[in-house]
Amino acid sequence: MRNLQQKLSVARGEQPAELLFKNARVVNVLSGEIYKTNVAVEDGRIIGLGDYRAKRTIDLKGAYLAPSLIDGHFHVESSMLTAPEFARAVVPHGTGAMVIDPHEYANVLGLDGIRYILESTKNLPLDFFIMLPSCVPATHLETAGARLTADDLKLMIADERVAGVAELMNFPGVFLGAKSELAKIKIGKGKAIDGHAPGLRGKNLNAYVLAGVGSDHESVGVGEAREKLRLGLHILLREGSTERNLEHLIPLINAHNSQNCSFATDDKLAGDLVNEGHIDHCVRKAIKLGLPPITALQIATINPARHYRLHNLGAIAPRFWADFIVFDGLKNFQVRQTYKKGVLVAENGKFPGKLPAKISLPRSTMNLHYAPKNFIVKASGKKKIRVIEIIPQQIITKAISVAPKIENGEVIADTARDLLKMVVIERHRATGNVGVGFVRGFKLKTGAIASTVAHDAHNVIVAGTNDADILFAIQELERLQGGQVAVASGKVKAALPLPIAGLVTDQPLPKAMKLIDDLNAAAHALGCDLAAPFMTLSFLALSPIPSLKLTDQGLIDATKLQKTSLFL
Amino acid sequence: MRNLQQKLSVARGEQPAELLFKNARVVNVLSGEIYKTNVAVEDGRIIGLGDYRAKRTIDLKGAYLAPSLIDGHFHVESSMLTAPEFARAVVPHGTGAMVIDPHEYANVLGLDGIRYILESTKNLPLDFFIMLPSCVPATHLETAGARLTADDLKLMIADERVAGVAELMNFPGVFLGAKSELAKIKIGKGKAIDGHAPGLRGKNLNAYVLAGVGSDHESVGVGEAREKLRLGLHILLREGSTERNLEHLIPLINAHNSQNCSFATDDKLAGDLVNEGHIDHCVRKAIKLGLPPITALQIATINPARHYRLHNLGAIAPRFWADFIVFDGLKNFQVRQTYKKGVLVAENGKFPGKLPAKISLPRSTMNLHYAPKNFIVKASGKKKIRVIEIIPQQIITKAISVAPKIENGEVIADTARDLLKMVVIERHRATGNVGVGFVRGFKLKTGAIASTVAHDAHNVIVAGTNDADILFAIQELERLQGGQVAVASGKVKAALPLPIAGLVTDQPLPKAMKLIDDLNAAAHALGCDLAAPFMTLSFLALSPIPSLKLTDQGLIDATKLQKTSLFL
Repeated sequence: MRNLQQKLSVARGEQPAELLFKNARVVNVLSGEIYKTNVAVEDGRIIGLGDYRAKRTIDLKGAYLAPSLIDGHFHVESSMLTAPEFARAVVPHGTGAMVIDPHEYANVLGLDGIRYILESTKNLPLDFFIMLPSCVPATHLETAGARLTADDLKLMIADERVAGVAELMNFPGVFLGAKSELAKIKIGKGKAIDGHAPGLRGKNLNAYVLAGVGSDHESVGVGEAREKLRLGLHILLREGSTERNLEHLIPLINAHNSQNCSFATDDKLAGDLVNEGHIDHCVRKAIKLGLPPITALQIATINPARHYRLHNLGAIAPRFWADFIVFDGLKNFQVRQTYKKGVLVAENGKFPGKLPAKISLPRSTMNLHYAPKNFIVKASGKKKIRVIEIIPQQIITKAISVAPKIENGEVIADTARDLLKMVVIERHRATGNVGVGFVRGFKLKTGAIASTVAHDAHNVIVAGTNDADILFAIQELERLQGGQVAVASGKVKAALPLPIAGLVTDQPLPKAMKLIDDLNAAAHALGCDLAAPFMTLSFLALSPIPSLKLTDQGLIDATKLQKTSLFL
Repeated sequence: MRNLQQKLSVARGEQPAELLFKNARVVNVLSGEIYKTNVAVEDGRIIGLGDYRAKRTIDLKGAYLAPSLIDGHFHVESSMLTAPEFARAVVPHGTGAMVIDPHEYANVLGLDGIRYILESTKNLPLDFFIMLPSCVPATHLETAGARLTADDLKLMIADERVAGVAELMNFPGVFLGAKSELAKIKIGKGKAIDGHAPGLRGKNLNAYVLAGVGSDHESVGVGEAREKLRLGLHILLREGSTERNLEHLIPLINAHNSQNCSFATDDKLAGDLVNEGHIDHCVRKAIKLGLPPITALQIATINPARHYRLHNLGAIAPRFWADFIVFDGLKNFQVRQTYKKGVLVAENGKFPGKLPAKISLPRSTMNLHYAPKNFIVKASGKKKIRVIEIIPQQIITKAISVAPKIENGEVIADTARDLLKMVVIERHRATGNVGVGFVRGFKLKTGAIASTVAHDAHNVIVAGTNDADILFAIQELERLQGGQVAVASGKVKAALPLPIAGLVTDQPLPKAMKLIDDLNAAAHALGCDLAAPFMTLSFLALSPIPSLKLTDQGLIDATKLQKTSLFL
C-alpha cells in the first residue's frame, strides 16, 4: 500500500501506475460527458485520467467504462441469500454498492441482526451501507423478536458504514409528531433519513418532510412523485420483483431535476436478480423508455452516492475507488465486466470473485411454545366469519365475510370454497401467542404451506387444508430451525431451510435458486396458482397494510390498526 | 418560538400559519419547475407549500418567488466594508448567504481575525459561512501578522458556521505532497475543501484533486474549466470586479453537469456591488448569455448550498429557512424584495433592515518601526535597475530593466520616465523590515499614494515621486491606524481611514463609497490614469504572483519565488 505522497507522485506521472485502463470510452457522470481517455489506478483508487504509464494495462479497445452501479434502497433479506451469495448474484450485473435496510434481520434479532449484517458484509466485492431500521416492530399488533428505540439506534449510528436512519414507515407517527419517531430522526442528524410514505400527499406530506425525512421510494405515479420531489424528497425510482414503478415515474425526470433521483429495488428475489438483473435492469429500462443514457447512469451512480454520502463512490475521477463496469453499447446496455477497486470481479455473467470461505451465522431464532389445541376454532353460533382475501401481486388484502364450514362444532377449512385455515405462532420469545383465521386465494386442494418469513415480525405462518398438515408443517419448520415448506398428508413435498434468522438460506446461489423453484413447484402441485405462493403468504401477517391481516395476536383490521374478531 | 410538534400541527393545517406568501410563482430549484402556489412560514421556516390558512398574508400577485442567492466564494475584505455594511450593499440584490474566506483578516490578525469575522457576522439579515484560510502567510517572502498551521485551523474547524478549508493557493505544495498542505486538507474532512489553481492542467491537476481538493474558482476558459469539472472539482463561476470569467465559462454548462457549478465573486468593490449587483448580476448575465433561467437560479442557490453543506438554505421546501427573493421577470432579472427568515429586509434597492447598533472592532494592528534613512537607495555604480511594470487591470506585473536616475549618489524617482519609488514597511511586529524598489505605470506627477491594504501580508505600501511625501504618507497611515491616502507636498489630498485591521472602513456604506471615490479622484488628480490606483498598488506586494513584486523583505522574483536585487 502506498501512502498519499507516493500516490501523488504516481498522479504527477513521475512513476508508472500499478494499472491503466486504456482506450476507455469513459462515462463521466460529473461533467455529463462520454469521451475517450485512459484511467490510471493505484491501490484500488483512481489516481488520474489521461495519458499515464503503467506496469499493467487493460486495453478496453473503445468499450464504455462507467462507475459501478448503486442500489439506493434494498432489503437484502428479500433475496433470501446471505450477503456473499447476494454479491454473487448482482456483481455480474455491475452492482458496486448497496444501501440496505436490514429491517427483517432487526425484527428477528434486534441490534444483533444489524451487527450480523455489518459483519457478514465485510470483505466482499460489493460495498454495503446500512440504514438503521426505524420501525421494529412494525406495529403493536404483532410480536417481533425485538423492539428498537431511538436510544438503541444511537448505539450504532456513528459506525462509518451506517448511512443513516431507514425508511420511517410509521409515517402517520412522523407527521403527527410522535416523540418516538422524531427522536429516531434526530439521531440521524448529518446522515440520510429515509422515508416511506405510500400515497401521502398535501399537508400531511408537508408535515412529514418538515419533520426531517429526506427521501421516498413509494411513489407509484408521476403526480405523487412530483409532489414529493417539489417538497425536497430524494426520489428513489423503485423497480423490484413485484413493485415496478419505473415506467410510471420516468416522465417525472427532466434536465433540471434528475440529480434528485436514484434507482432502488426495495425487494427482489434471487431468481429475478440473476435472470432479469439488478440496477443494470433499471438503467436498461430507463434508456429504453427514453431517458438520455448519461442521465440514467447518473441516477444509477453519483446521485445515490451523493444522497447517502458514500464518499469516493459513484464517479470516475481522482480519489474515487476504481469501481467500474465495462459495457459495449448504450442502446442495449449489458454489463460485460465488473471491477472492484481495480480488480476484475465478474465477467460475462460469471462471478470469478472470491467470497469468504466460512458463512457466519447469527444465533438460533426458533423459540416456539404452543399447544395444537389452540389451533381449534369452536363454532360460536354466529353465521359469518371474517376471511382474508388475497389480491394477486399485491400486499394489500380484501376483508370478506363468508359462512363458516362447521364439523363437530369446529370451524374448519373448506377447499371447495377455497377457504384455508391460517395459523400464526410467535416464534421469538415462546410467548405462546397463536393467531388463527381463514384465507381465500391459495387454492390448495390438500396439505399446507408454511414459512418463518412473515412480514414484519417473522413469526411462523401457515395456511392449510387440515389441522394435521398445519401441525406437521410447523413441526417441520421447528426441526429446520426456520424455513419454508410445502407438506401434504404428513409428508414434506419440498423444503427450503432458512437457518439464518429463519429468513435466509445458508446455501450457495445456484442451490438456493433450485430449492426456491422446487418449493414453488410443490405449492403449485398442491393446487396453488399464485405466481409466488410463499411471498404472498409472507405478507398476510403484515399488520400496517390494509385490509385484513393475521398476526400472533389474532385477526387485525389493518385499516383501523386494531384487533378484530373472527366472527361477525 | 414554536417547537417542532407545534410546527407540524401548522404544517398539517390544524392551525393557521404565522405568514403566507400567496399567489407566488415559485421557482422550485429541487423539481426544476416554476409554478404557482402559496408558501406558509412559521418562525422563519417554510412549513408547507399549498393551500394554507395564515394570520398574515403577503399577496405576491403572480410575482416570482425564489430562494435567496448565495455567493460560493468571496473575500469580504475586498469590499472594504464591515460585514453589516456589506449586508446593506448586497441584501437589496437578493443575497441571502455568503461563503467567505477571511484571508485578509487572517493575514493581519491570525485566528483573532477569524474570530472577529465570526463575531461581526452574527445577527445580520445575511448568513455568513467561513472557510478557514489555508495560506497565511502567502509565502515565506513576505511578513504577515500571523502564521496559521493545520494545528491552528483545527481549533476552529468544528464551529458550525465553519464550512471547511479555504482555497489552497499553494497548489504546487498540494500536488507535490507538502506535509503542511496535506495536513490542512486532512483537518477539513467531512467539510468542503476549496481549491485555487489558476491554469493547472494535466497530471499535476490530477494530483491536486487526488490530494483532496474539491473546488476551483480560477478557470478563465472553458477548456480549463471542463478539465477541472471532469476530475470532480465543483466549478465556481467567478464574476468579480476585475476577474470576469462568467461569459467565457457559460459554454461549459449543460443539462447534465450544471449541478456541479456555483457562482462566486471572489473580490468585488463596494461601488460595483451597489451599482452593478452581486450574485443577481451573475444570474442576469447568465440568462442573457443563454442559460435556462431555472438553471441559472439553481447555480445561484441550491448548488452552493449543497456543495458547502449549508443546511436548510437554497430551496423553497418544508424545513428550509424562509429566505426569499421576489422578482417580476426572468428575462430582465431584477430583485424587487428580499426576505430573511420571512422578514422583509430589502425592497426596491432600499435596505430597511436593522443592523447592529455598535460596530465591533478588533485590536489595533499598526505596529511599525522604521528609520527613514532606510528608504534611501545608494547608487551602486551598476547601469541598470529592475523595475516593476504595471499591467493595467491585471495582478501580474512585468519585470523591466531601466537606467536609474541618480542625484547626490542616490537612486531617485523620475516622473519624466514614470518611475516612482516604492517602499514596503512591515507593520505587524515592528521588525523594521523595509523593502525599497521602483515601479512604472502609476504616472503620478507629484506626491505619493499609500495603503495598508497590500496583499497578502498587508504591510504598508507606498509609491511616490519623492522621499518627503513617501514619509508623510507613511506617517499619515500610522496616525489613521491604517488606511489609504493620497498626499502631495506635505498635504493630505484624500484619506480613507481603515481602522479595522488596516483593511476595512468603520463607515456606513454611503460614506464609505464617497471616501473611496474621493480617494481615487485625488490619485487621478496627482496624475494617475489607472482605473483603480489603490487596488493596483495593493497587489504589487503579492509575492506568489508573477513577475516582479516588492515586499517588506525586498524585491521578489515571483516567478522563481526568491528574492532578487534592485541592481542588475
